[in-house]
Amino acid sequence: MNQDNLTKVLSQVANGFLSVENAQRQLKHISFENIDFAQIDHHRSLRKGFPEVIFGQGKTSDQIIGIMERMIINEDIILVTRLEKKKAQKITSKFQGADYFKDAKLLWLKKNEPKITGIGKILVISAGTSDIPVAKEAFLTAKAMGNEVDSIFDVGVAGIHRLFAYQEQIIKATVLIVVAGMEGALPSVVAGMVKAPVIAVPTSIGYGSSFKGMTALLGMLNSCSSNIAVVNIDNGFGAGFMASSINHVSAA
Amino acid sequence: MNQDNLTKVLSQVANGFLSVENAQRQLKHISFENIDFAQIDHHRSLRKGFPEVIFGQGKTSDQIIGIMERMIINEDIILVTRLEKKKAQKITSKFQGADYFKDAKLLWLKKNEPKITGIGKILVISAGTSDIPVAKEAFLTAKAMGNEVDSIFDVGVAGIHRLFAYQEQIIKATVLIVVAGMEGALPSVVAGMVKAPVIAVPTSIGYGSSFKGMTALLGMLNSCSSNIAVVNIDNGFGAGFMASSINHVSAA
Amino acid sequence: MNQDNLTKVLSQVANGFLSVENAQRQLKHISFENIDFAQIDHHRSLRKGFPEVIFGQGKTSDQIIGIMERMIINEDIILVTRLEKKKAQKITSKFQGADYFKDAKLLWLKKNEPKITGIGKILVISAGTSDIPVAKEAFLTAKAMGNEVDSIFDVGVAGIHRLFAYQEQIIKATVLIVVAGMEGALPSVVAGMVKAPVIAVPTSIGYGSSFKGMTALLGMLNSCSSNIAVVNIDNGFGAGFMASSINHVSAA
Amino acid sequence: MNQDNLTKVLSQVANGFLSVENAQRQLKHISFENIDFAQIDHHRSLRKGFPEVIFGQGKTSDQIIGIMERMIINEDIILVTRLEKKKAQKITSKFQGADYFKDAKLLWLKKNEPKITGIGKILVISAGTSDIPVAKEAFLTAKAMGNEVDSIFDVGVAGIHRLFAYQEQIIKATVLIVVAGMEGALPSVVAGMVKAPVIAVPTSIGYGSSFKGMTALLGMLNSCSSNIAVVNIDNGFGAGFMASSINHVSAA
Amino acid sequence: MNQDNLTKVLSQVANGFLSVENAQRQLKHISFENIDFAQIDHHRSLRKGFPEVIFGQGKTSDQIIGIMERMIINEDIILVTRLEKKKAQKITSKFQGADYFKDAKLLWLKKNEPKITGIGKILVISAGTSDIPVAKEAFLTAKAMGNEVDSIFDVGVAGIHRLFAYQEQIIKATVLIVVAGMEGALPSVVAGMVKAPVIAVPTSIGYGSSFKGMTALLGMLNSCSSNIAVVNIDNGFGAGFMASSINHVSAA
Amino acid sequence: MNQDNLTKVLSQVANGFLSVENAQRQLKHISFENIDFAQIDHHRSLRKGFPEVIFGQGKTSDQIIGIMERMIINEDIILVTRLEKKKAQKITSKFQGADYFKDAKLLWLKKNEPKITGIGKILVISAGTSDIPVAKEAFLTAKAMGNEVDSIFDVGVAGIHRLFAYQEQIIKATVLIVVAGMEGALPSVVAGMVKAPVIAVPTSIGYGSSFKGMTALLGMLNSCSSNIAVVNIDNGFGAGFMASSINHVSAA
Amino acid sequence: MNQDNLTKVLSQVANGFLSVENAQRQLKHISFENIDFAQIDHHRSLRKGFPEVIFGQGKTSDQIIGIMERMIINEDIILVTRLEKKKAQKITSKFQGADYFKDAKLLWLKKNEPKITGIGKILVISAGTSDIPVAKEAFLTAKAMGNEVDSIFDVGVAGIHRLFAYQEQIIKATVLIVVAGMEGALPSVVAGMVKAPVIAVPTSIGYGSSFKGMTALLGMLNSCSSNIAVVNIDNGFGAGFMASSINHVSAA
Amino acid sequence: MNQDNLTKVLSQVANGFLSVENAQRQLKHISFENIDFAQIDHHRSLRKGFPEVIFGQGKTSDQIIGIMERMIINEDIILVTRLEKKKAQKITSKFQGADYFKDAKLLWLKKNEPKITGIGKILVISAGTSDIPVAKEAFLTAKAMGNEVDSIFDVGVAGIHRLFAYQEQIIKATVLIVVAGMEGALPSVVAGMVKAPVIAVPTSIGYGSSFKGMTALLGMLNSCSSNIAVVNIDNGFGAGFMASSINHVSAA
Repeated sequence: MNQDNLTKVLSQVANGFLSVENAQRQLKHISFENIDFAQIDHHRSLRKGFPEVIFGQGKTSDQIIGIMERMIINEDIILVTRLEKKKAQKITSKFQGADYFKDAKLLWLKKNEPKITGIGKILVISAGTSDIPVAKEAFLTAKAMGNEVDSIFDVGVAGIHRLFAYQEQIIKATVLIVVAGMEGALPSVVAGMVKAPVIAVPTSIGYGSSFKGMTALLGMLNSCSSNIAVVNIDNGFGAGFMASSINHVSAA
Repeated sequence: MNQDNLTKVLSQVANGFLSVENAQRQLKHISFENIDFAQIDHHRSLRKGFPEVIFGQGKTSDQIIGIMERMIINEDIILVTRLEKKKAQKITSKFQGADYFKDAKLLWLKKNEPKITGIGKILVISAGTSDIPVAKEAFLTAKAMGNEVDSIFDVGVAGIHRLFAYQEQIIKATVLIVVAGMEGALPSVVAGMVKAPVIAVPTSIGYGSSFKGMTALLGMLNSCSSNIAVVNIDNGFGAGFMASSINHVSAA
Repeated sequence: MNQDNLTKVLSQVANGFLSVENAQRQLKHISFENIDFAQIDHHRSLRKGFPEVIFGQGKTSDQIIGIMERMIINEDIILVTRLEKKKAQKITSKFQGADYFKDAKLLWLKKNEPKITGIGKILVISAGTSDIPVAKEAFLTAKAMGNEVDSIFDVGVAGIHRLFAYQEQIIKATVLIVVAGMEGALPSVVAGMVKAPVIAVPTSIGYGSSFKGMTALLGMLNSCSSNIAVVNIDNGFGAGFMASSINHVSAA
Repeated sequence: MNQDNLTKVLSQVANGFLSVENAQRQLKHISFENIDFAQIDHHRSLRKGFPEVIFGQGKTSDQIIGIMERMIINEDIILVTRLEKKKAQKITSKFQGADYFKDAKLLWLKKNEPKITGIGKILVISAGTSDIPVAKEAFLTAKAMGNEVDSIFDVGVAGIHRLFAYQEQIIKATVLIVVAGMEGALPSVVAGMVKAPVIAVPTSIGYGSSFKGMTALLGMLNSCSSNIAVVNIDNGFGAGFMASSINHVSAA
Repeated sequence: MNQDNLTKVLSQVANGFLSVENAQRQLKHISFENIDFAQIDHHRSLRKGFPEVIFGQGKTSDQIIGIMERMIINEDIILVTRLEKKKAQKITSKFQGADYFKDAKLLWLKKNEPKITGIGKILVISAGTSDIPVAKEAFLTAKAMGNEVDSIFDVGVAGIHRLFAYQEQIIKATVLIVVAGMEGALPSVVAGMVKAPVIAVPTSIGYGSSFKGMTALLGMLNSCSSNIAVVNIDNGFGAGFMASSINHVSAA
Repeated sequence: MNQDNLTKVLSQVANGFLSVENAQRQLKHISFENIDFAQIDHHRSLRKGFPEVIFGQGKTSDQIIGIMERMIINEDIILVTRLEKKKAQKITSKFQGADYFKDAKLLWLKKNEPKITGIGKILVISAGTSDIPVAKEAFLTAKAMGNEVDSIFDVGVAGIHRLFAYQEQIIKATVLIVVAGMEGALPSVVAGMVKAPVIAVPTSIGYGSSFKGMTALLGMLNSCSSNIAVVNIDNGFGAGFMASSINHVSAA
Repeated sequence: MNQDNLTKVLSQVANGFLSVENAQRQLKHISFENIDFAQIDHHRSLRKGFPEVIFGQGKTSDQIIGIMERMIINEDIILVTRLEKKKAQKITSKFQGADYFKDAKLLWLKKNEPKITGIGKILVISAGTSDIPVAKEAFLTAKAMGNEVDSIFDVGVAGIHRLFAYQEQIIKATVLIVVAGMEGALPSVVAGMVKAPVIAVPTSIGYGSSFKGMTALLGMLNSCSSNIAVVNIDNGFGAGFMASSINHVSAA
Repeated sequence: MNQDNLTKVLSQVANGFLSVENAQRQLKHISFENIDFAQIDHHRSLRKGFPEVIFGQGKTSDQIIGIMERMIINEDIILVTRLEKKKAQKITSKFQGADYFKDAKLLWLKKNEPKITGIGKILVISAGTSDIPVAKEAFLTAKAMGNEVDSIFDVGVAGIHRLFAYQEQIIKATVLIVVAGMEGALPSVVAGMVKAPVIAVPTSIGYGSSFKGMTALLGMLNSCSSNIAVVNIDNGFGAGFMASSINHVSAA
């Protein structure tokens, strides 16, 4: 449901052409749609500036296609995350314009290229080669939401001179996403270098007492830097979404 | 060390009036100062836009006074966090312009009122009465860093109509800080209502399996809303700092 | 063992036709039956109002069939939970009246439709599409135990207007089962809306620090609402059983 | 806000004597009241059948008295939980009709004796002598909410014949609350004896690997009995509230 | 190395026929044997009354056969635990007298039936059908070590009358092994019925917050009965070994 | 209730002098006694060979005295564990024959010296000086229950030659109790030296990641020796009780 | 980048043949190389005395080959750890001089045999047969880095005489690596025997409450011996690296 | 027991002046001494190059004085760790030459200044002001054991330029001890700068999810640098001891 439709309904109520009861019923259907296994939140675009994102994990490709068919009527872009290759193939053969990014396990279907609407540039930094899939999920999410995005991969703290080589680019970023597994120290170091907000993303990379990302997560939450906040383990999507939200702040 | 001093040193190097070795030594002293028990990071104002904040816990009042005496020379405002009442009294009798906020365990000493430099308004929301001290620490930190800040206290999800009564104010905020203990559900609900970024702050309020805030922390990290990122348990200061950082973003 | 048989044995003892020793031996066999790998609790129908339920996980299909053959003599309905599809096929080819529900991994075999004996209606609510299998296990269990049951799926707190659209139906329920993964916030919000008892069911849906449902479980245990109690992670069966138990309370 | 006032406002809206905007504003104030440090949920009596309960921990006696003064205008009974003796003394000297129960750390102030409105009898059972304070908090909460309540203390499983001596009383209860620390086995055994719903309450009694009640909590969540649901550690209040909610179920 | 060989060597030293250095070297080889990937503890029979037991998990069938070939020279019985079926087949085709117990994943090879040397009877009790494999491992281990052993399976606390039906047999046992998963309450109840020592064995049976046996383990460690001690999760072998050790105690 | 009284009641039933109903009622009172805050398990001596032990923690001295007054009528010895010095003083001034052991926080009151009834000797070994209080609780408990007991303190594995100096004494023990904090390695080493059963007792001695005894507990549960079983952290009483139970085993 | 190249660049700057800007750019490329998915730290040989080691897990064989091709230009030896057999086969067919060690999952490619440069001998000790793969990874890593290395396998504490048989060899070692799973007691015992530094390596060998090595890790961190430090679970590589670092210490 | 005494005893055995039995008995007393509450390990100087260190926590000042009186006969230096001020005062009034270091809670008593016997210099680095007490414990321990030691305090990663200012000093160290709380990132960064071995010491400094040092500990164990090993939380003593052990390595 876009802004125009909403305005129309409300005017009719104001003019007495539409009773309160009827308007309520109509807005209920506009605001979300019950398709048996899902209640699609069509109102989300209005409320949050971006349509509901489909969490691919635990849904069949048929369910995903069903949701996409309803959403594409009203939305300019649809994002599906955590999507296995096999399901993606079924979906891309149905929606031929859809793009699937294997590394990031992310698919998008868009009517046209997202306009760049963010304030500045989002920079995605990752500590190791194995953290790249999570970093790419963040990268693509932010891209889809209308942001300029850059990336620097494999600059972990064991060879910290690699990080400082990119100091200028780092200082210029409007928002930073820093992705790291193992001890998760990189976001602290990066946040110490800049005044911009840093979104820290722990990954499940590591072994033994890395506890599938718990160690990195705890490290980031206890950072001695303060311009930092943390998202869930491997949650590249959430990091990209939050960074975009930050890159779009405005006075009321 | 402010921007002007730095420019002067660098020009002298460029002109050959100052050798690289001497400049290096001089800049080292400008950038931080070794006072035995601390290495004061005078460079932080330059780098991060706000001077180093003194973590009061685990320092004696004498140590804190010592650090404040060095910092006040160059800085417009000094913040001390996690400061017990007894230590605060010693400090306020030394620096008579200092203000101590008992609830928030925060002290500030400022040469003049901080200028409002942020983009919009920061809104601090807390779930329960017992979460107020953490919420106030966030509030005052954001205030000190040049932001307009508002607050709504005691609007937890057990009586969710209280929250919706403030919907208009919530939707208008540029950045939101949401503070909650127990199950920590409030940030999810608030983030679902807005497109602005939400900083979630778990508190140690609760008992039994609340595990001193761990339950609230985990709940917030697993939020089904996406415009959310989390700071450490009871870390009102970090939330205020991050929110201010977000409220000051700009293109490079 | 039904009530009639029991009465007969006891009368014989009273009349001296049956010695205490013999009665004891006979009642022992009536109350449960030792079939090598299991001690079937035939007494459970008498004691608890519903026959022993077969936990399918970790039993072979032959073992399950063996138990069912003994139970079907005395019982009107047999429930098998956590039953994999393959085992279910063997069982349904043996007992042709049996119904298998793939989503819920539940099978039942019944002599006739269960009579509705509960006080009012049980309502099963789930937060996300992926929580549906657990919700369905609860739904079917309650159904089998003689309750009217309704359901609302996919009304998580990220779009809380979807929940409020069903407010009327929610308020009318006699008992509610609320199923959620991730941060597990939905039961708190629902319990805040009603005076009826709410059974909260955490699911293992989520990733990273959701810890396979632990985060949702802890959140529910620390709910700021009070008309709430919690069952084990993914324990749809237990929730349905407890809800039915509540829906059948009576004065002594 | 009671039912009558609400009816009056709504009629005025229907008749056009009150605009929607004004009614909205008025109902907002009726539904809750902002007294600086708290947003008292006056609507709770209407919604949940019992007024908001004051969680005493972390509030000053002045704050509690402030809230009580507002609430007593509209409510017949006020409950304060987790209240230390010292604070209680201040409160009872202010409200002379108030009763304080030291063991249970609970205070109530009531205009008249609560009417018995529940379906049957609630029975509170505790495993050990040290579990009695939690059991009493449950007992008094249920009492305050209009239930007949009985109790059996110190019947832990190490001498299980003590429990079976009370079998008749146990079987007759409409709802059971079973309180236990250490390994928390008692609720499983009790639930195996009855068909009524059992609320299991873990306590923090124990040492070493009892982890302040975590072991009892986990044991109860994994009960092999099914007519059981669990509340937070030491949450006697929640257990009493939930039991009362169950003891008051009715068809819509 | 049996007692006789040892006596011979020592006599030779006493008589001066064997130097201390040579005796030391000889006894070193007798006491254990280095076969590249293992240091077989031949001394164990002497020291502990039973030869070293081969932990099958993580060893190849060739490694196991290699160790068995060396051990069978001196020992009357060899036990292999945690042995997968495939490996077992290779071993039984090599040692045709070996018996493999699929449920218990245990293999033994013996020169003659173990003599009953224990004081009394060991009784193995299990809570559920799924706990039987662990119970059988305990049963067979105790059997192999020269004990009379009995078993009662599937007498969990949800239908506690099944347990009491076996009261006489339970009271007569010299040592008891009680195996249970889920909440692990059975050992507490059994230990409350007897004065004999009870070995509690938690199993990994359960789901959700059973944490693969951790909940049962913690419950057993916190038992309110005192004639109880606990072994590792699923450690049927250890329980059988410990029970046999108890069943063979004697004055010095 | 001793054996004689029981025999008398049962004979009367057999002869028809006592109806079943009356006998049942009488035996119920004999078996335990309800004194308001406790249900004293008088039947325990009969069933377990030792009277109920009073857990002092969380009981007032008046409650303890109340229980002791009832018990001393029928019992030869009363044990109170986890008893603070202050409470002990009140009790010893009431019962002048009582002995209080400050280190072990244990009190006993006995009519005459316990007869030595155990099979052999129990040996208590502790790793460090700080583990002595727990070791002494085990020592005294075993003593009270009719066992010969010896002890060796401060023989931790960091200087393992100290342990081997006592090898002869260790090998001769009938049952061993091994008490250790920190990494808890001592029981493994001791159990490797003997064939007798070893009760391992973790203590809360240590710091940092010793987690108040959790590390020692886990280490002991995962021992590579097999004649070992474990009790709760700091549970010297349980260890002494279990060791006595083992030292009293007999054929049925 | 070796020492000679670096000297050349720096001399040119000193002589004015190379501007500071150009030198900076050149050194940046020398210090590390950006090959899209990795930033190869060529500077590491200079800084740490050994080239960057390739962590094979989570990289494709093509990525590994790509990195090896760049590194082999400047380095004498390349190490790849945690390398699955399949990937290894592709790599050894590309680099025919490469050796793959299946047990240790380690591959090396070297221009010539590493020179022995360490101070003394490194001794690798393992507790059980199943710990050998981790022990071998440590062994080979230390070997590759220029150390003499010896090993003793399968000398766990359950038969501690096996360990003492090797006392002489143990006492002579310059650095010790002790590898153990289950309760992880071996490093404490070994460290108590020597004055040399001991690197303790917990392994994930065990079951139940061994928690995949966590129990062994905690045990080692709480060792009552002091010449001990610990690496991550299963981290044979890190242990070998650290031991080599110790075996190469020198005065500045 | 020093080397000379030992030689004398052994010669007498060789010459036949002393029987094996007598020598064994004599060496037993020399090797350790049983003083009731402790078995003083006099052999430790011989075996480990430094006398047994007294762990002050949990011992009375009288016990400590008792041990010191025995030890001072044979030893040149005695170390007491984790010693509270009050106990220290009693000890220093008894042994007037003893020095007590309040910050580090460490006391030493020495006959003469320890000779510098280590290979090079040990450098202690700490992240924050609050980590200084742990750093000082490490510093003094290493000092007492015959090492040259330096320190740099308060150079945490939030202002990483402070660390690099000391790069030269850091690179020259023979062994490094790096002490940090909160996220514990400093050791990774330092280890990335040097080839010398780094001992990482987590501290309990932090709050919320720092879990009293657990987060720092896990971070250090998962370091992406490899010349690192870790000791227990707040274990400055162990770090100093291990560093000294490394600084004294030699070929056999």
